[in-house]
Amino acid sequence: MKIKEIVMIGSGNLATNLALALYESHKTIVCVYSRTLENAKTLAERCDCRYTNRLEEIPKTADLYIIAVNDSSIKEISEGLSNLNGIIVHTSGTIPITVFSDQINNHGVFYPLMTFSKYKKVNFTDIPICLEANSVRAIIALHKLANTISNNALEISSERRKMLHLAAVFACNFTNLNYSISDDILQKNQLSFHLLKPLIIEMTRNTFLRKPAENQTGPAFREDIETLQTQNELLKSFPEYLEMYNLLSKLIISTKHKND
Amino acid sequence: MKIKEIVMIGSGNLATNLALALYESHKTIVCVYSRTLENAKTLAERCDCRYTNRLEEIPKTADLYIIAVNDSSIKEISEGLSNLNGIIVHTSGTIPITVFSDQINNHGVFYPLMTFSKYKKVNFTDIPICLEANSVRAIIALHKLANTISNNALEISSERRKMLHLAAVFACNFTNLNYSISDDILQKNQLSFHLLKPLIIEMTRNTFLRKPAENQTGPAFREDIETLQTQNELLKSFPEYLEMYNLLSKLIISTKHKND
Repeated sequence: MKIKEIVMIGSGNLATNLALALYESHKTIVCVYSRTLENAKTLAERCDCRYTNRLEEIPKTADLYIIAVNDSSIKEISEGLSNLNGIIVHTSGTIPITVFSDQINNHGVFYPLMTFSKYKKVNFTDIPICLEANSVRAIIALHKLANTISNNALEISSERRKMLHLAAVFACNFTNLNYSISDDILQKNQLSFHLLKPLIIEMTRNTFLRKPAENQTGPAFREDIETLQTQNELLKSFPEYLEMYNLLSKLIISTKHKND
Repeated sequence: MKIKEIVMIGSGNLATNLALALYESHKTIVCVYSRTLENAKTLAERCDCRYTNRLEEIPKTADLYIIAVNDSSIKEISEGLSNLNGIIVHTSGTIPITVFSDQINNHGVFYPLMTFSKYKKVNFTDIPICLEANSVRAIIALHKLANTISNNALEISSERRKMLHLAAVFACNFTNLNYSISDDILQKNQLSFHLLKPLIIEMTRNTFLRKPAENQTGPAFREDIETLQTQNELLKSFPEYLEMYNLLSKLIISTKHKND
């Protein structure tokens, strides 16, 4: 089972980044599908291949079909892809492998643990690619393919992949919310978010040197009630962040005492 | 007004890092004070100077007294330092300059915007040092001193410094809490926190390329209700994080629609 020809189903940030990484690793993308023909065309032109917005026009003889669409559309699309011999995978962190009907002979998951934007092409070299498949032959083929774009492919069950995705929501999406709130507070006080850059770089570096819990600092961690009160006062100008401030401060304090 | 001789009051992470940075920039630390004599001694030995745990033994003729102690002790210590000609500063983000009595001729603030740990010596080169003083002569002297250890000294009022500190709590302390929760979730599922490293590095880089709000991704941002529900289910194993998960998801959604 060798993966030579690939169909990309989807044209969003993940689909685009993954298709380009495969294309640049000399894999052949034979077709891009998107509900919106214009989007399919844009990606297809970058991968030098055909495109369509009709599921029934997707070639039947490809070796791999990558469904990189919204979680809620995976089931429907996979049911529209019948009578194929190639492997069908989705790229979701949360949807289990059981989303695929047993009628699909070879199916699996190809989940790159990364945040993708429309602004920037991502380098896949270090990205963990979480693999799962319904057969040994399929998992071997997926491993081989993942290794052409990343040094960090690993097999992981649907249950643990879900947990990994949940952890990524805290580490990436919620962290980005913190940065965005910081930026808002600073901007409204005519201060630049870039003043925080050395602090953020240092904290991020420390995160990988020791356990994050060992790096915790700040007024909540010191249980400095006066500063917590002063900052509650300051948040009168930002009432939308007050509940979060107090909840996270409480969590920092209780985490500190967890092992008391 | 030239700062040659410096007294360091305090021996915690900030005091230690700042004293060493000044010492290594060929400034003379003449004395380290700490309530705990042993801690004063440890730092004094690294700065090649005297030490004491009695305020009245602090030399009266130094050019600068840096009070780098808990916020709640600044007032009391400054009141114990009377009849000095040198400048007295504190290093707090939140305490206003008015903590100092007018009887102290020259006073101000010397606040390095950074997280300091006992594990690691910090390089001050890029650290913003927020300065404030009650006289032009003092602010000029503090600027000159700050420039010997950092390229990033700036004058900033007590009011805006408080806001900067508040923004830093979100960007550093709360972000670290997120990493710590991620680590907890992963560890309990026999997964390594280092799997998230490429994701965290990418997200952190993006934060400084565009406005953080423009980088927001994830299930809440996509308003992917099914994934939010699935992750609520998963958090039954981590009930202490459920309220935070839902509050931050709600904030991501409301921030997205702020400018609708």
